[in-house]
Amino acid sequence: MKRIHNFNAGPAALPLPVLERAQREFIDFEGTGMSLLEHSHRGKAYDNVHNEAIALLRELMGISEDYHVLFLQGGASLQFCMIPMNLVPKGGSADYVLTGTWAKKALQEAERLGVGRLAGTSEKDGVFPRIPKQGDLDLDGNAAYLHITTNNTIAGTQYHDFPDPGSVPLVADMSSDILWRPIDVSKFGLLYAGAQKNIGPSGVAVVVVRKDLVDGARTDLPNFLRYSIHASKNSLYNTANTFGIYMIRNVAAYLKELGGLGKVEEMNRAKAKLLYDMIENNSDFYRCPIDPESRSMMNVVFRLPTEELEKKFIADGLAAGLNGLKGHRSVGGCRASIYNAVPMAAVEALVAFMGEFQKKA
Amino acid sequence: MKRIHNFNAGPAALPLPVLERAQREFIDFEGTGMSLLEHSHRGKAYDNVHNEAIALLRELMGISEDYHVLFLQGGASLQFCMIPMNLVPKGGSADYVLTGTWAKKALQEAERLGVGRLAGTSEKDGVFPRIPKQGDLDLDGNAAYLHITTNNTIAGTQYHDFPDPGSVPLVADMSSDILWRPIDVSKFGLLYAGAQKNIGPSGVAVVVVRKDLVDGARTDLPNFLRYSIHASKNSLYNTANTFGIYMIRNVAAYLKELGGLGKVEEMNRAKAKLLYDMIENNSDFYRCPIDPESRSMMNVVFRLPTEELEKKFIADGLAAGLNGLKGHRSVGGCRASIYNAVPMAAVEALVAFMGEFQKKA
Repeated sequence: MKRIHNFNAGPAALPLPVLERAQREFIDFEGTGMSLLEHSHRGKAYDNVHNEAIALLRELMGISEDYHVLFLQGGASLQFCMIPMNLVPKGGSADYVLTGTWAKKALQEAERLGVGRLAGTSEKDGVFPRIPKQGDLDLDGNAAYLHITTNNTIAGTQYHDFPDPGSVPLVADMSSDILWRPIDVSKFGLLYAGAQKNIGPSGVAVVVVRKDLVDGARTDLPNFLRYSIHASKNSLYNTANTFGIYMIRNVAAYLKELGGLGKVEEMNRAKAKLLYDMIENNSDFYRCPIDPESRSMMNVVFRLPTEELEKKFIADGLAAGLNGLKGHRSVGGCRASIYNAVPMAAVEALVAFMGEFQKKA
Repeated sequence: MKRIHNFNAGPAALPLPVLERAQREFIDFEGTGMSLLEHSHRGKAYDNVHNEAIALLRELMGISEDYHVLFLQGGASLQFCMIPMNLVPKGGSADYVLTGTWAKKALQEAERLGVGRLAGTSEKDGVFPRIPKQGDLDLDGNAAYLHITTNNTIAGTQYHDFPDPGSVPLVADMSSDILWRPIDVSKFGLLYAGAQKNIGPSGVAVVVVRKDLVDGARTDLPNFLRYSIHASKNSLYNTANTFGIYMIRNVAAYLKELGGLGKVEEMNRAKAKLLYDMIENNSDFYRCPIDPESRSMMNVVFRLPTEELEKKFIADGLAAGLNGLKGHRSVGGCRASIYNAVPMAAVEALVAFMGEFQKKA
């Protein structure tokens, strides 16, 4: 079986042992004579998977019983509208910090609902080279929440310290860096993530939300768009994406086996250091356009001397078994996404390839 | 490998060859060295799958270019609110026919938006033993659409002729009987289905919608809830449930290989006939509470002389390798869901078991 190094930004690499487990039990799940895909979402076999996925996320992230852990569909994009619809009271508004394309999409949905307010941006000539500092923010003390995007896949930036929103709940899109390290969940009112980068396959959004925010949420919404409805049914109000949640369970079990998020962070920092060091040590050829203190440990963006060389780099990389090195079409350049599931061996292969490529260029 | 007979109502049985194909190529998809789950939803490998799934559905169902074929998330439940939000103009309303639990949920979401109107019901003492006839309906000629639920999994009823809505677009929830036979799509303004019964795994909704309805839909909605946004991006506005759509592609390819929907209908009718005949021919013991002309070819509901016998029937059935024979908790009794993927052999095994059980009782 062929297996290449996958630096895709999302859907992204999954841990090989997780894929192997799913393949092994794909047709006959736990001796039931049926695939997990064929099990009722209200049956015992699936129920165990569902609740184990929640319990493992609680354990890995240290999520207390003050929070619901929900599995919804529609990805982060549906959350962009569900969050303001649920959490902004009539006549209220919510603060948004702009740090990239996805933060902008979140703000735009809030603006379409008439409740989005810009509280800060690091945009400069159409790009976002850094994360705003606390002092750069113009916070509304009456906002329903402050929304941030903790990691920016296209810009290649990441919050290393979260802003202090005062008494306003902090809401965070963690689609591209959930589970990358331990965090203090109690700092957040709500955090959410499309699963397809660090937790599982596409088609599930994980939402961790403080119970009191759900209890106080607006009720004049379609039932399907209300957190309280999904929370009251343990995310089984409607048929869940059972296979996606099963894969999340498997990824979470794998991360626990690795030693938990402390260990995962150590591995991620070592991968990122190797790659950023390679770039810094060869700054006559490779260049990272991101402020050092804002650099992402998940998505490493870099430029080569010319766009022609970048094109060749990406093509030669693919030929050498390194997939997904093209930067997002909106910003160009190169990008290596090194999420949890990308092994050190892949980064070592990339760094070796970068050295060779530079020599030949 | 163990494989049992699966009569689940949904998520439901999938064709074994489809499961085997997915298992075979689960880790190394088409020699790319990556799982399909790890492929970008904007990359070539997935793009081919996505477009082939659409093309196969168009071919199988005879869907013209006047319609979009969309793959959305959130199942039929999200459609319950997206449909009225998009299609009912300010001050307008939509007609709903009540034929069971799911039809009621669809109406309730429209009512929460203030636009649902009851156009007919077959409810009688809390159950729905038949499909209303055209003459039973009280249609509003100014309705934005007429909504029906073509098959009712809990009640065990199915539309065999669709109502004539006049000039009003017909909107149909076909979650539990899409692809069961050829239909004339041009009779519908919009039809939709959660995939987890007849098309694939849970986590995808298929929406087939006339382009002019999308063009005339409301624009004062969050982007994620607008059909026009998803249609303009070929269902890739946000990250699609790539694995779910891949499975739909595989199911559609399998149905085509079987000979298309004409052949599928033939097989489904033969299965249903065998089972209903068994019930009719043993009416001193088994009883189907549904009007003969409204009986579902997908979900066969039946009663035994006592609830004790029903309990024993379900338990003994499971022990004999027949899974999922319990009726929905809201109505009790027994139910065998015999969707496309349930083979004749499973129905034969069920009928044989029913004969044995009756003898012993």
